[in-house]
Amino acid sequence: MDAKSISLADLARKIGGELVGDGSRTISAVRPFDEAGGTDLTFLDHKNAKMVAALPTSKAGAVIVNKSLALPAGLNAIRIDPPHLGLARSLAVLHRRPRPELGVSPASRLGSGVTLGERVNVYPGAYLGDGVRVGDDTDILPGAYLGDGTSIGSCCVIHPHVTIYGNCQIGNRVTIHAGAVIGADGFGYVPEPRDDGPSEPFRHAKIPQIGGVVIEDDVEIGANTTIDRATLAATIIGRGTKIDNLVMIGHNCTVGRHTIIVAQAGISGSTDLGDYVTIAGQAGLVGHITVGDRAVITAKAGVTKDVEADKVMIGAPAMDIHEGRLAFKLLQRLPDFKKKIEDLLRRVKLIEDSAGGAGEEKKPE
Amino acid sequence: MDAKSISLADLARKIGGELVGDGSRTISAVRPFDEAGGTDLTFLDHKNAKMVAALPTSKAGAVIVNKSLALPAGLNAIRIDPPHLGLARSLAVLHRRPRPELGVSPASRLGSGVTLGERVNVYPGAYLGDGVRVGDDTDILPGAYLGDGTSIGSCCVIHPHVTIYGNCQIGNRVTIHAGAVIGADGFGYVPEPRDDGPSEPFRHAKIPQIGGVVIEDDVEIGANTTIDRATLAATIIGRGTKIDNLVMIGHNCTVGRHTIIVAQAGISGSTDLGDYVTIAGQAGLVGHITVGDRAVITAKAGVTKDVEADKVMIGAPAMDIHEGRLAFKLLQRLPDFKKKIEDLLRRVKLIEDSAGGAGEEKKPE
Amino acid sequence: MDAKSISLADLARKIGGELVGDGSRTISAVRPFDEAGGTDLTFLDHKNAKMVAALPTSKAGAVIVNKSLALPAGLNAIRIDPPHLGLARSLAVLHRRPRPELGVSPASRLGSGVTLGERVNVYPGAYLGDGVRVGDDTDILPGAYLGDGTSIGSCCVIHPHVTIYGNCQIGNRVTIHAGAVIGADGFGYVPEPRDDGPSEPFRHAKIPQIGGVVIEDDVEIGANTTIDRATLAATIIGRGTKIDNLVMIGHNCTVGRHTIIVAQAGISGSTDLGDYVTIAGQAGLVGHITVGDRAVITAKAGVTKDVEADKVMIGAPAMDIHEGRLAFKLLQRLPDFKKKIEDLLRRVKLIEDSAGGAGEEKKPE
Repeated sequence: MDAKSISLADLARKIGGELVGDGSRTISAVRPFDEAGGTDLTFLDHKNAKMVAALPTSKAGAVIVNKSLALPAGLNAIRIDPPHLGLARSLAVLHRRPRPELGVSPASRLGSGVTLGERVNVYPGAYLGDGVRVGDDTDILPGAYLGDGTSIGSCCVIHPHVTIYGNCQIGNRVTIHAGAVIGADGFGYVPEPRDDGPSEPFRHAKIPQIGGVVIEDDVEIGANTTIDRATLAATIIGRGTKIDNLVMIGHNCTVGRHTIIVAQAGISGSTDLGDYVTIAGQAGLVGHITVGDRAVITAKAGVTKDVEADKVMIGAPAMDIHEGRLAFKLLQRLPDFKKKIEDLLRRVKLIEDSAGGAGEEKKPE
Repeated sequence: MDAKSISLADLARKIGGELVGDGSRTISAVRPFDEAGGTDLTFLDHKNAKMVAALPTSKAGAVIVNKSLALPAGLNAIRIDPPHLGLARSLAVLHRRPRPELGVSPASRLGSGVTLGERVNVYPGAYLGDGVRVGDDTDILPGAYLGDGTSIGSCCVIHPHVTIYGNCQIGNRVTIHAGAVIGADGFGYVPEPRDDGPSEPFRHAKIPQIGGVVIEDDVEIGANTTIDRATLAATIIGRGTKIDNLVMIGHNCTVGRHTIIVAQAGISGSTDLGDYVTIAGQAGLVGHITVGDRAVITAKAGVTKDVEADKVMIGAPAMDIHEGRLAFKLLQRLPDFKKKIEDLLRRVKLIEDSAGGAGEEKKPE
Repeated sequence: MDAKSISLADLARKIGGELVGDGSRTISAVRPFDEAGGTDLTFLDHKNAKMVAALPTSKAGAVIVNKSLALPAGLNAIRIDPPHLGLARSLAVLHRRPRPELGVSPASRLGSGVTLGERVNVYPGAYLGDGVRVGDDTDILPGAYLGDGTSIGSCCVIHPHVTIYGNCQIGNRVTIHAGAVIGADGFGYVPEPRDDGPSEPFRHAKIPQIGGVVIEDDVEIGANTTIDRATLAATIIGRGTKIDNLVMIGHNCTVGRHTIIVAQAGISGSTDLGDYVTIAGQAGLVGHITVGDRAVITAKAGVTKDVEADKVMIGAPAMDIHEGRLAFKLLQRLPDFKKKIEDLLRRVKLIEDSAGGAGEEKKPE
């Protein structure tokens, strides 16, 4: 539908891969392995044994594959390592969609003092508050909300029903998926005494959150993720960082550059992540800690302390992976330990009994 | 308010239950046990001891109850197993709301080439992109967004602020609750070298996600749940499957038929679930695994490997329930193990000492 | 921007703190420690050693600090315990934003029989269904949806893209952050036999959810949180309770007063929480249990049984903190246990061998 056509040789050159076979073949789309036909490129995961076995029967015009896999004779291919990079680039070449030229829909609502760059699309139902600034070539989709004083860079896509509260700063080439909420109030309260009798000794007084959120360039944020505004300063997401769906990032956090945060992970307030950190799915971090560069927090881990650079943490409470794996291995040996302890108890009892006095049953003579 | 009136005998017949008592009594609503009056039906959970004890004082016109519970004399009832089925059917009979006849609101926005069935309601603020198709008797509530090329079947309800990205297919009798996001990009990146110096050796290049999402008939999807679109093919939710709130389903997953996924569970990309599977709350599954039919993943479990049909898995990393329960039982016995080991060490020491040479302390003579 | 000016002495009096230094100094904003200048108040966390060490170099006009920390000579301060209360109150004094006077936007949509109090703002794209009632001084932001028959009290803020289904009751001074969904259907199904052959023996029949949600006064609800409506009666959130982002509260739950529920926690259906309970991040509670007043459920805990008042629970499945800490301590001693068991086995073998007949190896003579 939105695909173009290109010769296999040209495609190989464009994506930086090595051509195998007939370079004159026309390729017009990337399609799934099972469905690819003569003008389609498909992707072969060399770690997927089923796919590799099925390769001789593939009807695809060509495959993207890693450099070392042996290929059936006559198969056209582009070799590239890692092959996923070839996939990413081929999709970008063949399936890039042109942006429509909509301009500003009369069914959108722009506040006073809004500044728009060139070729900005503002869809029906979008709301831009007073003083909002939007860079060139940015799309604001239906129902997206940008609060007063928020700025967005160029080449961004703000998907439907995204809410960006006021006074947040979004960089260039940032994509925010549907339903994400940027800049809601951080979760900050302080107990304040009440006069309402012994059953209600205090209430939780709100600490107003007047800081902002800064999202640097090339960040992508998943659907229904929430990133809270800081109390006084800013919650910061470093450039190139990618955040999946339903992630929670608390107020005052600083997330480094090129960090990956997988779905449903949660980072409590005032915690700082370094560069190239990985936070896997459903992991959770307490507040006020620091995670060093390139550290990996595995799925469902619960991190309660600072993590040094390059460490891999597992479990809840999280342990270094070596320690944690040992603990888990020993856990599985508990039935064996139980048996050995029972065996020892029996044998020691036998020794004590036969010695007629040695050990446990020994009485003063 | 939206209730009708019916005789108890007719209601019993309609819901397939057994009438006990006065079938001529008029019933006009289903109400909570504590609040039900003479023209109300209420629901009695026979496993709830407090409710059963309070039964003689109930002012309800009649109760729905299972077949075996002894009832006080003079109480009107409909007996049915399971009683929740009676509740479900009674509510459907007495509280079915008529759909309003709104048609297409002028405050909604329809793209070019949109096809609508009969009696479709499109509420104010809804957005239907180019080429969207909607079946008969479907409601698109305020602020719902359907991207270009998406199709929806008949008798669906798309609640407020649902976002369905383009080129997704939704079946018949599908309900999608508010804020759910269907078809956002799967979370797929590949490291790509950069020239920006040693502190930023690579960036995460996006793998464009050009596949879709297919939701089959009779699926219900909870509020703020996210189901990502596939990379090339489709993420598929099988017919009759029910998904709770804040669930994450990654790209390329296939979920079978009549499967239950409870709130805040997460299914990583390319994982396949069978039919009649249960994924309990806050459970997480890694990617690229298969879960067999009727398997049960309990709450908070972290599944890291394939799960065979009919297995029940607990814990993180998840174990078969029998193994897992044993491990947990042994965990609770650790204080006892510790005591026994200390006792053994003391007794063996005594034996060694009294033997004057046997065991540990033995020295070459 | 939205700050006022006040003398330090007046501010100290207004927030109930003790003035230290020059009370005539003008303060016009609260700013972060690193950025505060001569007319700014800043906040000093006395537990943060770095901040305390940097205090002599602070350029802030004054600091809020606890009562006991020693301060450098010449520093202006307001002392108050807890200092966060001083922060909260100072922000309220200096950064309270005036509400705009918008009235009802013509780009909003009001159903029949809507009742609005004084000074209500209804922003563009908001949708109020038939019979909706809104109290004085309440803001309904762009894209918020209030279903038929829902009522909202006075001084509330309903942020963008909040969905409140029909027939819910929201109290006074309630703030609901963007994307939260109140009153979606509870997750209730019952197996119903089908005739579709052995591969589909039953379907999940929906139990219609006709109850409501009641949110009492002074509640705050985080972004993208979901609170489901009850089956027959009401899901209730008690007054003064604060709920963070991405929390799930199931149908028929009753949450007490002044309870704290942190991000990504989940409460299953029909579970009741007392007053002043704390549910930490990513914790999960099964359905049909009761948690007593002031109990604390720590982060990631999985609660499977009733919890008594004042208990602190950790782990999954959750244990009392004392028991749980012991179990975790013993877990870490498993390598030591293993070594001791191996040592015992060796020593007992030696004793048995040297005794030439005692214990394990004993043979009938």
